[in-house]
Amino acid sequence: MTYCVALKLNVGMVFASDSRTNAGVDQIACFKKMRHFVNPGDRTIVILSSGNLSVTQNAINRLEQHGRHPDRPNLWNAESMFDVAQLLGDCLRSVRERDGVHLAQNNVDASANFIVGGQIRGERMRLYLVYAEGNCIEAGDETPFFQIGETKYGKPILDRVITPDTPFNEAIKCVLVSFDSTMRSNLSVGLPIDLVCYGASSLALDFEQHITADDPYFSQISKRWSEGLRGVFASLPSPDWLIDAPAVTVDDQTGLTE
Amino acid sequence: MTYCVALKLNVGMVFASDSRTNAGVDQIACFKKMRHFVNPGDRTIVILSSGNLSVTQNAINRLEQHGRHPDRPNLWNAESMFDVAQLLGDCLRSVRERDGVHLAQNNVDASANFIVGGQIRGERMRLYLVYAEGNCIEAGDETPFFQIGETKYGKPILDRVITPDTPFNEAIKCVLVSFDSTMRSNLSVGLPIDLVCYGASSLALDFEQHITADDPYFSQISKRWSEGLRGVFASLPSPDWLIDAPAVTVDDQTGLTE
Repeated sequence: MTYCVALKLNVGMVFASDSRTNAGVDQIACFKKMRHFVNPGDRTIVILSSGNLSVTQNAINRLEQHGRHPDRPNLWNAESMFDVAQLLGDCLRSVRERDGVHLAQNNVDASANFIVGGQIRGERMRLYLVYAEGNCIEAGDETPFFQIGETKYGKPILDRVITPDTPFNEAIKCVLVSFDSTMRSNLSVGLPIDLVCYGASSLALDFEQHITADDPYFSQISKRWSEGLRGVFASLPSPDWLIDAPAVTVDDQTGLTE
Repeated sequence: MTYCVALKLNVGMVFASDSRTNAGVDQIACFKKMRHFVNPGDRTIVILSSGNLSVTQNAINRLEQHGRHPDRPNLWNAESMFDVAQLLGDCLRSVRERDGVHLAQNNVDASANFIVGGQIRGERMRLYLVYAEGNCIEAGDETPFFQIGETKYGKPILDRVITPDTPFNEAIKCVLVSFDSTMRSNLSVGLPIDLVCYGASSLALDFEQHITADDPYFSQISKRWSEGLRGVFASLPSPDWLIDAPAVTVDDQTGLTE
């Protein structure tokens, strides 16, 4: 499994991905699920990937390889992030076309999806989700973030906190809480976390952090969030309508204790 | 969608289910997903259901109808909760056998599953999860709860709080927080919530509550949990490694602002 999230805020963008891949519980490895393509002053493109690892890697390999041919449409000469999202969708489709049937023969799921975001000189920052079918959608102000992979456990805190006005510090804190919740509930999402920030209109890669198991900040966030949740839960009132609850006898596991 | 949860604690059992069913967003209705069968002093059986509504209803109709024939194995003469879980699995299989092909012709998902728990005189309390295929598993001390339907959003708080030693008040509070989280993140899970408690070895239905939108306790829990989470989040430290973060210029949505 995988967990990736990307935010599009007024101040810029935040991208984060975990690093665990698994093919069954006995085959776990660590692979980077984030790639960035930067031509300072011209464009910054970040791609996060989820799904079948060979499919996502090969799609990005194709995208990269097209980039070596200036005569072809590619990620270095694309005039918009929309074009980049479409190119990535096309690469995904070619890989699935080549490998899909063979994977299906062994009941291997060939699906994969991507988040791709960044900025190209001449247009605003943009954030896309590329579906397994190769089509894409763009994030707007109402939905300032996308997630892929194991998305549910980490979504509530993003829903509660993230708006386009959220500053970087708050956003990073929220992303890490979101990762913490996901990793607690799904063992197949794991450290290290790759995290990058892109400052609006900087057209560079502004900040990069590789968060490993001994990162003191992440450990602190994780511990204090857990303690805080327990504290809030403990402070909630008990139900007052349990007034006529049963006077119970403890079941001794051996049978009825009447 | 649906959300149901059942806990097996030392003091007894807690069962809860939402009431929203939907066939597309424009066809939403309210159906009870909890049934109980009680013969005081002899047995208390509670069933929670999730999945295709016609399949779950028809399976329980069959189970109930078998109960009118004392010559057949049925839920009133079953000697164990294990037998009840198997009878329910058989009923589910018969319904799917009758209707499955016809539903499949219209791409309608005929899957459904159940939680069934309670106690029969002569044995301990037991809690089962009946899968869509009709097979079942039993909860133990290591896994003192089962969920069906939209399970992910409400699982973290159960994981953090519920152990076999949890008292009723705490357990009910936790179940309601779990429902609150689920309903916030998935619109297809909704009030009212049906909640019952069974006191170990009481062989009766000890407490029943129907929680509607104007329930003051549930509203209070929901509000205070939300405020509490925001408070804990606000109290978490900001990342100290963002020291060399970009001095950002706000993107004006019209293009590059260099």
